[in-house]
Amino acid sequence: MKKVAIYGYGNLGKGVELAVNETPDMEVFGVFSRRAPETVKTYGATVYKVDDILKYKDEIDVVIICGGSAKDLPTMTPQLAQHFNVVDSFDTHKNISEHFEKVEKAAKKSKHTALISAGWDPGMFSLNRVFATAILPDSRDYTFWGKGVSQGHSDAVRKIEGVVDARQYTVPIDEAIKRVRANEMPEFTTREKHKRVCYVVAERGADKQRIKDEIISMPGYFADYDTTVYFISANEMKNKHNKLPHGGFVITTGKTGQNKEHNHIVEYSLKLDSNPEFTASVLVAYARAVIRNAERKNFGCKTVLDIAPGDLSPLSPEELRERYV
Amino acid sequence: MKKVAIYGYGNLGKGVELAVNETPDMEVFGVFSRRAPETVKTYGATVYKVDDILKYKDEIDVVIICGGSAKDLPTMTPQLAQHFNVVDSFDTHKNISEHFEKVEKAAKKSKHTALISAGWDPGMFSLNRVFATAILPDSRDYTFWGKGVSQGHSDAVRKIEGVVDARQYTVPIDEAIKRVRANEMPEFTTREKHKRVCYVVAERGADKQRIKDEIISMPGYFADYDTTVYFISANEMKNKHNKLPHGGFVITTGKTGQNKEHNHIVEYSLKLDSNPEFTASVLVAYARAVIRNAERKNFGCKTVLDIAPGDLSPLSPEELRERYV
Repeated sequence: MKKVAIYGYGNLGKGVELAVNETPDMEVFGVFSRRAPETVKTYGATVYKVDDILKYKDEIDVVIICGGSAKDLPTMTPQLAQHFNVVDSFDTHKNISEHFEKVEKAAKKSKHTALISAGWDPGMFSLNRVFATAILPDSRDYTFWGKGVSQGHSDAVRKIEGVVDARQYTVPIDEAIKRVRANEMPEFTTREKHKRVCYVVAERGADKQRIKDEIISMPGYFADYDTTVYFISANEMKNKHNKLPHGGFVITTGKTGQNKEHNHIVEYSLKLDSNPEFTASVLVAYARAVIRNAERKNFGCKTVLDIAPGDLSPLSPEELRERYV
Repeated sequence: MKKVAIYGYGNLGKGVELAVNETPDMEVFGVFSRRAPETVKTYGATVYKVDDILKYKDEIDVVIICGGSAKDLPTMTPQLAQHFNVVDSFDTHKNISEHFEKVEKAAKKSKHTALISAGWDPGMFSLNRVFATAILPDSRDYTFWGKGVSQGHSDAVRKIEGVVDARQYTVPIDEAIKRVRANEMPEFTTREKHKRVCYVVAERGADKQRIKDEIISMPGYFADYDTTVYFISANEMKNKHNKLPHGGFVITTGKTGQNKEHNHIVEYSLKLDSNPEFTASVLVAYARAVIRNAERKNFGCKTVLDIAPGDLSPLSPEELRERYV
């Protein structure tokens, strides 16, 4: 049984604990938390202080780093890669190359294997964009997200004065998806692909019109979208918006034939009741692949594009060929 | 420019020629045919006799073998792997392990890289079955084919006495797909998943009832399905059934959560106007990966499960990370 350390224990870390428990070949070594261990309630895993992790260097096969992309991962992943095989879910697209270089340097030097940006986007969606466009050079790929909860957008709304709680749903626009599936290869504005819907619990006596105006005009988050704001009670928030569903579509349309007369539509879609639990399940499958690559001395930083798909499965190559090819 | 030889020139070989012409990094070395070269009309590629291929051993980077799985590939692929890097689309599921072993032996010995069973099923569908079930251990995967033309089933009908021409469409049953998407994790009989529809041109005066009875009772092909037979004119066959569309769905439904309370649906679908041209496009992307793996001295027999996805693309790892991760 390979031993997995979980570094950080929010929704993603919890999902990783559950996902590792479902595997036949890996077990949780422990959870490493910045909080006092006695205050962290797990599904059964032992809790350690983050500062103690180096003591267990020889007992841990891989560390799954469950921190945030903004503040945690840019330092945590390169640091931990100096001592461990690691997996993260770094998702700040514009900084992926920079993050890759830092992790590559650390992992190559320490002779470990690191995999960054696992999950579903980046992750499974990245894979599908690469597969489809490599197969169909004369193609266009489209990514739609949702319907699902965006935690970043929900947090942005919560910071507005007078907001007690908020939940933001990203919703793909059906008409846009239909046009892509109809092989029109359209150009879209941001507004034409997705809309945003916010559920907000306001403080008693707060100016709802001001809150609404601040939301829909927020640059980078809402200004480029058609956004609807609903004010609801704390009770309704708790009962109707307590889950973290998400999903989306990668649709690639391409043409082949002497006169480009044949259209092809490749579509990958996810419909997830729990975004953190599915993301965690992807991280755990890639943790298995990381351990295997480290055993083959294939060190350094990787993304999902560098990993042979068979390495994700607990089954042997022979079993996989028999059962799935 | 890497040089690709096309071995066999039916619908698949033609698709390979068109697909290689669309790539920025590969070109067609030539077509090798069993027919007299002067009788083979290509889109521009030079035609050679199959028996002459060894003369061009040093000029060819990879051979894409476009033969049939029943009679051609079981001997062609191991033979050619003694001298070349090769790609095939072997699709007789029950013999994949045996085929793999023969090709592995030849390629390892000659220090070449071979990839078998590329295409969309086996191929892209195999990948999606492995990805989804590796991520979601508590899951079930379902494959539906169609609506599309099955060449094997069309050929089987053509062999019946009194049949001039035939085209068979495999059609997935909507109700079954709905039940899978609804997360019921159903068990299906063969009849519940797909139906078959045949268009037949009969000889003048042929006994249509007998032909129909022979079709719908044919073991291994039609007996386990609800099959509909339509008799049409040669003209209608030519005008309405002259294309080779196909496609299908791989749908995996799985559960996560402490009490398995979260459902996830992963769906990959293809809608292809030309089955041979899309299959050919997959073979060409894997030919690129085969060349790269041979350059890294990663010799022997591979399937799509053994190839890092980034190897399929003409873009560099840096470009891929920037553009698609």
